[in-house]
Amino acid sequence: MIEVISDINEMRRICEDKRQKGVKIGLVPTMGALHEGHLSLIKCALKKADFVVVSIYVNPVQFGPEEDFEKYPRDLERDVRLVDSHCAHVVFAPSDRLMYHEGYSTYVTVEDLTASLCGRSRPAHFRGVTTVVAKLFNIVRPHVAVFGQKDAQQLSVIRRMVKDLNMDIEIDAGPIVRESDGLATSSRNKYLNKEEREQATVLYRSLEAAKKLVNDDITSSGQIIGKVRKVLEEAPLAKMEYVEIVNFDDMRQIDDVSNGALLAIAVWFGETRLIDNVIISGHGG
Amino acid sequence: MIEVISDINEMRRICEDKRQKGVKIGLVPTMGALHEGHLSLIKCALKKADFVVVSIYVNPVQFGPEEDFEKYPRDLERDVRLVDSHCAHVVFAPSDRLMYHEGYSTYVTVEDLTASLCGRSRPAHFRGVTTVVAKLFNIVRPHVAVFGQKDAQQLSVIRRMVKDLNMDIEIDAGPIVRESDGLATSSRNKYLNKEEREQATVLYRSLEAAKKLVNDDITSSGQIIGKVRKVLEEAPLAKMEYVEIVNFDDMRQIDDVSNGALLAIAVWFGETRLIDNVIISGHGG
Repeated sequence: MIEVISDINEMRRICEDKRQKGVKIGLVPTMGALHEGHLSLIKCALKKADFVVVSIYVNPVQFGPEEDFEKYPRDLERDVRLVDSHCAHVVFAPSDRLMYHEGYSTYVTVEDLTASLCGRSRPAHFRGVTTVVAKLFNIVRPHVAVFGQKDAQQLSVIRRMVKDLNMDIEIDAGPIVRESDGLATSSRNKYLNKEEREQATVLYRSLEAAKKLVNDDITSSGQIIGKVRKVLEEAPLAKMEYVEIVNFDDMRQIDDVSNGALLAIAVWFGETRLIDNVIISGHGG
Repeated sequence: MIEVISDINEMRRICEDKRQKGVKIGLVPTMGALHEGHLSLIKCALKKADFVVVSIYVNPVQFGPEEDFEKYPRDLERDVRLVDSHCAHVVFAPSDRLMYHEGYSTYVTVEDLTASLCGRSRPAHFRGVTTVVAKLFNIVRPHVAVFGQKDAQQLSVIRRMVKDLNMDIEIDAGPIVRESDGLATSSRNKYLNKEEREQATVLYRSLEAAKKLVNDDITSSGQIIGKVRKVLEEAPLAKMEYVEIVNFDDMRQIDDVSNGALLAIAVWFGETRLIDNVIISGHGG
């Protein structure tokens, strides 16, 4: 069975030793509750690295006070089995006590990029993400780290942090993995009841409708967003949080998608918040 | 003559190559305008490391809008000669354009420790320091970095950052270096006119008076601070900013120095702000 490391110094020693021997190190940071999306990230990492660390850590700092930190699904044994069967090399599962010791007070913030999309309703979320990712990077010192395209804004924020702070790490994106009916895989899908789960496919359908518009040479963000909203309204249980079209680089809203854009949506079903997105490649993409 | 590197990737390559060969790397971060204080830090670094990088970079992000960024003394040629004659191995002198590219937006903040002492009058200062030091650490990846004890709060903030973000770097402190009359060496001493320079020795004298009180078993912070203020008032040109006694760990004020403390002062002479400090070791220290 794959080794599970909980001690920070031990994790560091193992990775430093590999690095000294010229082994290329990959990191897949996760909060556990692994699904096909995570497993595809492990596959991406294995293509780029010889030694793949999967971190499993439900990071308290990225949850808001009203959010689902307590109820977030945790099943380390199941997760470790999955990581093992997908041929990663070690699991890093530190405790809160080790990651945020008493008196902890250092945070990494990307001030740009975090005012739109998810950053608006989750103001401290990305600060928590960049902080824990900076810590994981300093412990594991990976050559490459893989994040999911589903969290598009997170990906963009992490890329900016790496560039700004001169971290010598390649950031790769793994494509969105979907259930057979189109719903993007997410640990939070477990929260949905039967009816919500059925209606949740509306996120994917709304993005497909947008792609069809763009294929028909519609490039106005307003028209595309209007269509997405209309499709989402067909699901009685869906409560829109945002439907936005932004630049990749700075996550700022743009009026026209001709040069490519990110269409991102957040929709609530009851207590559960789902996000999804699609890259519009512009000019019939 | 010692090599001067301005390119970030080249600096990284040189250090990564040394590290791979098992060479121990030391870093002395400076803003140039080198004086005996900096040179003593180079000596400290040479004791701990085989390859010593001295960075010379006037970091715009740590200056407030009303501060002396523009007039801060710059003389790279002179600094490089000094570094060379003190046997460091390479100078890293990047440009602003490389360090803070367009769209730069990532900052490292130590939220605790920065509300007292210098943090009160220079609110964004330490954020600028921790950000640039994190960047330098990621570029050079030193085994050990040396900072001056004169900037005691900075030292404490950097130690906290390193601990919190799991940076694998030893932080060493170099003792305060003083002119023959007791004034702590500082690049800003150059700003003083003749009269101010003469009176500036009052900082050292006030700290010596405090040490004498502690030697006489006075441990009340109030009494010690009172004495320091009284000595400082003897210099007509001196304008006190703060006289504080704090814990090392959290930089919070304490009422009694029996278990050791930091006595730190900031005093203005005209447009020039000088700081100094002494470690009170407690119980007659």
